[in-house]
Amino acid sequence: MTIFVVNPNCSQQVTVGIDRAVDPMRSASPVPIETCTLTEGPPGIETQAHVDGVVALLLAHCAALEAQASGFVIACYSDPGLAALREQSSHPVIGIAEASILTAMMMGQRFGIISILSASIPRHMRYVGAMGVMDRLAADRPLELGVADLANETVTWKRLVQVGTNLRDEAMANVVILGCAGMTAYRARLEQELGIPVIEPCQAATAMAIGRVALQKALEGK
Amino acid sequence: MTIFVVNPNCSQQVTVGIDRAVDPMRSASPVPIETCTLTEGPPGIETQAHVDGVVALLLAHCAALEAQASGFVIACYSDPGLAALREQSSHPVIGIAEASILTAMMMGQRFGIISILSASIPRHMRYVGAMGVMDRLAADRPLELGVADLANETVTWKRLVQVGTNLRDEAMANVVILGCAGMTAYRARLEQELGIPVIEPCQAATAMAIGRVALQKALEGK
Amino acid sequence: MTIFVVNPNCSQQVTVGIDRAVDPMRSASPVPIETCTLTEGPPGIETQAHVDGVVALLLAHCAALEAQASGFVIACYSDPGLAALREQSSHPVIGIAEASILTAMMMGQRFGIISILSASIPRHMRYVGAMGVMDRLAADRPLELGVADLANETVTWKRLVQVGTNLRDEAMANVVILGCAGMTAYRARLEQELGIPVIEPCQAATAMAIGRVALQKALEGK
Amino acid sequence: MTIFVVNPNCSQQVTVGIDRAVDPMRSASPVPIETCTLTEGPPGIETQAHVDGVVALLLAHCAALEAQASGFVIACYSDPGLAALREQSSHPVIGIAEASILTAMMMGQRFGIISILSASIPRHMRYVGAMGVMDRLAADRPLELGVADLANETVTWKRLVQVGTNLRDEAMANVVILGCAGMTAYRARLEQELGIPVIEPCQAATAMAIGRVALQKALEGK
Amino acid sequence: MTIFVVNPNCSQQVTVGIDRAVDPMRSASPVPIETCTLTEGPPGIETQAHVDGVVALLLAHCAALEAQASGFVIACYSDPGLAALREQSSHPVIGIAEASILTAMMMGQRFGIISILSASIPRHMRYVGAMGVMDRLAADRPLELGVADLANETVTWKRLVQVGTNLRDEAMANVVILGCAGMTAYRARLEQELGIPVIEPCQAATAMAIGRVALQKALEGK
Amino acid sequence: MTIFVVNPNCSQQVTVGIDRAVDPMRSASPVPIETCTLTEGPPGIETQAHVDGVVALLLAHCAALEAQASGFVIACYSDPGLAALREQSSHPVIGIAEASILTAMMMGQRFGIISILSASIPRHMRYVGAMGVMDRLAADRPLELGVADLANETVTWKRLVQVGTNLRDEAMANVVILGCAGMTAYRARLEQELGIPVIEPCQAATAMAIGRVALQKALEGK
Repeated sequence: MTIFVVNPNCSQQVTVGIDRAVDPMRSASPVPIETCTLTEGPPGIETQAHVDGVVALLLAHCAALEAQASGFVIACYSDPGLAALREQSSHPVIGIAEASILTAMMMGQRFGIISILSASIPRHMRYVGAMGVMDRLAADRPLELGVADLANETVTWKRLVQVGTNLRDEAMANVVILGCAGMTAYRARLEQELGIPVIEPCQAATAMAIGRVALQKALEGK
Repeated sequence: MTIFVVNPNCSQQVTVGIDRAVDPMRSASPVPIETCTLTEGPPGIETQAHVDGVVALLLAHCAALEAQASGFVIACYSDPGLAALREQSSHPVIGIAEASILTAMMMGQRFGIISILSASIPRHMRYVGAMGVMDRLAADRPLELGVADLANETVTWKRLVQVGTNLRDEAMANVVILGCAGMTAYRARLEQELGIPVIEPCQAATAMAIGRVALQKALEGK
Repeated sequence: MTIFVVNPNCSQQVTVGIDRAVDPMRSASPVPIETCTLTEGPPGIETQAHVDGVVALLLAHCAALEAQASGFVIACYSDPGLAALREQSSHPVIGIAEASILTAMMMGQRFGIISILSASIPRHMRYVGAMGVMDRLAADRPLELGVADLANETVTWKRLVQVGTNLRDEAMANVVILGCAGMTAYRARLEQELGIPVIEPCQAATAMAIGRVALQKALEGK
Repeated sequence: MTIFVVNPNCSQQVTVGIDRAVDPMRSASPVPIETCTLTEGPPGIETQAHVDGVVALLLAHCAALEAQASGFVIACYSDPGLAALREQSSHPVIGIAEASILTAMMMGQRFGIISILSASIPRHMRYVGAMGVMDRLAADRPLELGVADLANETVTWKRLVQVGTNLRDEAMANVVILGCAGMTAYRARLEQELGIPVIEPCQAATAMAIGRVALQKALEGK
Repeated sequence: MTIFVVNPNCSQQVTVGIDRAVDPMRSASPVPIETCTLTEGPPGIETQAHVDGVVALLLAHCAALEAQASGFVIACYSDPGLAALREQSSHPVIGIAEASILTAMMMGQRFGIISILSASIPRHMRYVGAMGVMDRLAADRPLELGVADLANETVTWKRLVQVGTNLRDEAMANVVILGCAGMTAYRARLEQELGIPVIEPCQAATAMAIGRVALQKALEGK
Repeated sequence: MTIFVVNPNCSQQVTVGIDRAVDPMRSASPVPIETCTLTEGPPGIETQAHVDGVVALLLAHCAALEAQASGFVIACYSDPGLAALREQSSHPVIGIAEASILTAMMMGQRFGIISILSASIPRHMRYVGAMGVMDRLAADRPLELGVADLANETVTWKRLVQVGTNLRDEAMANVVILGCAGMTAYRARLEQELGIPVIEPCQAATAMAIGRVALQKALEGK
């Protein structure tokens, strides 16, 4: 039985980054953690059409894994197909946006989100509203850097510090969530710079999946 | 290193019940799980004065365990000392009320709470308000059974079914939380009766603690 | 130029019902109103997988109509693809759930929703939360009748009156929304029975589309 | 039968501006649109006393028009008498504040409001709270220009751009509402400058009135 | 200097009831408390038109008293003219609805409101929304008794107990507000019956006015 | 019978400042107002552990005064022991944070809070959330001055003006609350500087206690 961390875009490079992020947790997991790539998915999930369009593919992908699975993590910050996969699977299903927000709620009273582009923020706002936790949101602010620009480490770091500082000092965030899997590598450095917790959502979600796998044992044991 | 599940009342019997509830998770935990009793605590935590009064004792108890701890679970549904222990400890600190609510938010859109007595509900409401998740609450309804009455299994079961059915059908709850450690033994049976998930908060909190211990590895590994 | 009212399921019978509902508005519309059926869609949209799965089909269907369109109405109470179609089209796009809720907000302080089955309610709750209008919701209650059962007029009417009365008297709703296109034929009769406004969402949405087509003239005229 | 757009202040010049704003919609309306002036009203509605004081006059004015009316638009951003006129009239009654906010909710996830003076903002906040849509508000910010100052186009434009830019970039608004009929002439230019939708509330309200007149046909036809 | 408790309807009998309710507070007030009747007001304030229509009269009435006043209490549960009188007067202005709700928030976590008729509830809901305290409202439920029916003590008492019990046991209210000045005489008896605090709003408001008169001394003394 | 204003820290100097702040109200109070110091308390209440730890002491202190008391004011902005003392005492119990917020809600639509340090803000946010009034909060911003730094009048005044101006102009607060008893002496001067009401919480709470003492007479008189 395995926790499957599914990257719903087709970028193998993103999957590699996710794998690196969750790798230290493998030794603490009761079951193997396997990252995989939705090879039929789009190169990146940037629009609502991408979010909705990937769901059928994701459901099929996970249906094929159902028998071997202890749980699923959907590793895209729009949590595509989260509700649908929960309807389909009998295992715990964790979305990285939802899990990172719930984790942030234990680490600070108000959470900030760093988004890649301002175009994703309305989508996040609908989601935070659907979760019913708008009062805990400090702000969601964009780097205004495209995925290509993220390759430029100097520019990305500068913007991460600017936006993170703004979230901490202007929006009064007590904890910051990296609102995209592409910022994984900056987590520890940004946390040190800001002096408040910084959450990488794939890690937060995989941690919750590990907890839920343990919980399943209690549920079945009773 | 150990996850300590601290029962902040002095009832050894309650601690035994908690231990039984979390026992099946031990095989899935990367570290030992140890339950313990705050022997200087009150026999039960029933008033706000009990909640506030137990905090200093709890902090001292946990300070003594800090060096051996991977994390702490506060095993009382009023989450006494949660914020204070988070200020004191460098490890993850999980409260069973908060953790059960966050877990419920992944298992259903609206959660119901079954309380022992109506007197605890205003305290719960302040807490759900402080968490900022009032829109996710279906209702919090009381058994109106004192702790002594809980020993009467026939009466307790009858009221659990009545209140749970009311939460599901009138308040439209999609998931139900047992709002007291004393109802642990009824979880599976009530879930089967109601046909919607029923969460035992000590289990939910310990599961989150296991996840957070795993997460710490990722945070330190980066 | 035309307002297209798109039924995203493949049931021609449902489309006929929608057409009958909006027909009296044709004489008041500045442009033709055309109902159409997503023939590749599922027979009914009952699960989250159906909601997400129909989006790509709907986007393709509407892309083909874009040049002839003044606006689009998505005629399913889950508003599938609403955000995505708004990203794709340069015309006003109206979802029947959103439009019926916004219309209800002008007709009464608290709105109730009558759903077919309790399984759709969590989906509705996420949506009402994403809209940020949870404080205006009185309650969402199910008929617990499947689509097949709706054919039984006696049973359906009895349940509509029961649920509508409960929404009015227990949940204190001032206006009621029919949360499914299959209840169209009962609107006037239920309104008369309850003595408060009853909203049929396809009508409400098409009315808003007519208004938006008029608004476009003002936006372009300035 | 006619849609009456009632300017509740006695300034004929304001009525002329409103008429110009809604004029392009006349060709798309199933009934005539007539603007009129509450000649007994105050020169401007600037205080809560003005808002409350104008209601009796407005009710009398509209009572006289009831027999000829298809619907009423109250063309003042404080929506004076909206609830009272709804109690009195059997036709749809639309307030420009409410209608512009509901329209904004279909055009963007978070709306900003540009007010003339900071003194009107508490009144707006009570109204947004009464509507139950505070979570959708990005911010309400003032030009701090009196009505006389609005005649100075250079100053007004400069402030509109400053405040609009602040709403878009700091408050993260996705759509902006002009919170006063006196800014009508700047709508298109400001929308172009900001690159996000800008809503003129008299136009939004009249569009909704047109939709509601169409809806009445469906309600009566059934 | 005097606290003026203004009954904005013209019923001298209502004023007498208010006077009796606040009379025991006179010995604890630093200034005289005088009740007065808006003789030009309507016999009762039952519609939104009444609420709005009485404001100009009330403002004039209070302007004439301004020089002798320490503060004003508006003694109608719709708080007519509250915001307008605050703009006009330099003294503390207290509305009985607002003051009773703020008082209830210190006496219990969730408050219930007993209204005369269901027609007043939407008005109350807009007000609770404008106050931003919807999460503290348990429910607002009507006696469905007209003012005339209130003269029938047997019927009124029976309904008060029914509605109060429903608020306490179904809506889980911890404190109940009498949502109309006409129920003053039943406060103590209902409180005894229900076993939870029952607030008479004229008393709560006058108490707050006494406090505010004291506060003014501190504000001026510094 | 006496209103006891209890400073829950052991600093006699703080008590002196509180006494000076409430002194002008004595002439307007129906009963004596006595300030006292919890001599066993910590020198200052700066952490959640201090807040929780002081409760048992406070309860004992107030139990000893119960027979002579008309009411209690807890004079620390974290309102330590408020709910517990309400359970214990039969008199009105007022917390300075709650009372200042309720008072602010009558003086302006949105209130700002000036905190000493950013570390207290999460505690305040939990409290505002528990009160259910988050929608009325403009912002809570810190001076970032320690208690020692407050002795430096030049620095403190400069920061008070900076933070107060930011709350008024950026966060759009209509009224400002001094979120610590140590800022009492600056109230009048800051109100004059900002041009909006500034609330000193010990004064606001004592004023409410005076009102509640008056209310008790009415409650008993009926």
